[in-house]
Amino acid sequence: MKSMKALVDKIRNEGKAIGTDIVKVDGFINHQLDVAFMEQLGREFSWKFDGEEVDLILTVESSGIAIACATAPFFSYAPVVFAKKSVPVSMVEGYYHADTHSATTGETTTLVVSKKFINEENKVLILDDFLSHGESARALASIVKDAGAELVGIGVVIEKAFLNGGKILRDMGYRVEPLAVIDHIEDGNIEFR
Amino acid sequence: MKSMKALVDKIRNEGKAIGTDIVKVDGFINHQLDVAFMEQLGREFSWKFDGEEVDLILTVESSGIAIACATAPFFSYAPVVFAKKSVPVSMVEGYYHADTHSATTGETTTLVVSKKFINEENKVLILDDFLSHGESARALASIVKDAGAELVGIGVVIEKAFLNGGKILRDMGYRVEPLAVIDHIEDGNIEFR
Repeated sequence: MKSMKALVDKIRNEGKAIGTDIVKVDGFINHQLDVAFMEQLGREFSWKFDGEEVDLILTVESSGIAIACATAPFFSYAPVVFAKKSVPVSMVEGYYHADTHSATTGETTTLVVSKKFINEENKVLILDDFLSHGESARALASIVKDAGAELVGIGVVIEKAFLNGGKILRDMGYRVEPLAVIDHIEDGNIEFR
Repeated sequence: MKSMKALVDKIRNEGKAIGTDIVKVDGFINHQLDVAFMEQLGREFSWKFDGEEVDLILTVESSGIAIACATAPFFSYAPVVFAKKSVPVSMVEGYYHADTHSATTGETTTLVVSKKFINEENKVLILDDFLSHGESARALASIVKDAGAELVGIGVVIEKAFLNGGKILRDMGYRVEPLAVIDHIEDGNIEFR
């Protein structure tokens, strides 16, 4: 789990630690998006999962959409599906769903994916920006399981190793590949593993 | 306002009319994303706004993120900023905001953009998937104005010409460029202009 140098540099230069567990990367991932840099992250994910067959990239709105779109070209333009946080009025067909609890906001959200867009033939790569408590990834993995699809792995841009999400997911047997691993945050300094 | 043929074909083949005013394009724009096709849409936007200087692409979560990211490379990788529908706990700096009312859900949402990512030097292209009543685009345009930035134009993938959003925005003096214009929907048929 070696961190990607360009990403570590970018987080050091443009990211900001808030308290002991929030890393603000709104300048290139979360609010303003640096699409050229996103493409580098996408290429890096393709190296991490080199040799794996992936025919569906699954993520969650809104945080994962940009990274999933930037990664798709490196997996032969595999379709991207983003789980929605509410059931659209037009989603009249069936859907898979799983709950996710946010430690930051204290809210529980139900993620939904239409049954039209995932099935038991799919080989799925889950992508997201952050891995903290692992709630989103766990909900997405549960949807992959419900659909009878194969979960190739979980790629995250930044894993917070001082939270338990990565451990939980790996203990469940999932392959988890972060591009950068933050060991801890101390006095406003972000320390990478 | 000639519709893009590949887009019209795609909507005809994969889209679905629901009632008289909803067009479901969840197979390539709204839930499952066809990134290769998105790149074609991005190229088309660059032709529509050929010769215009654009140094910021502004959109709204979640619907506009993929199309904005696919368009950025055709504008020299201009930064993409997506307006958020709630104020993140980490957005401690100031932000611009504007309300938008959804005719579909009946809800009013406040869009927010950090003051860090838009200023009076910017030449802004607003992008979104649909133009219906024009509420989102109007809110984004209001944020551009509050920031003192220049609004180059508004690009939308699909304009519903039977709703009043396009007229309202053009009457306000904005340049609005749709890639496909739906004239009306009748008996489940989507009729293009």
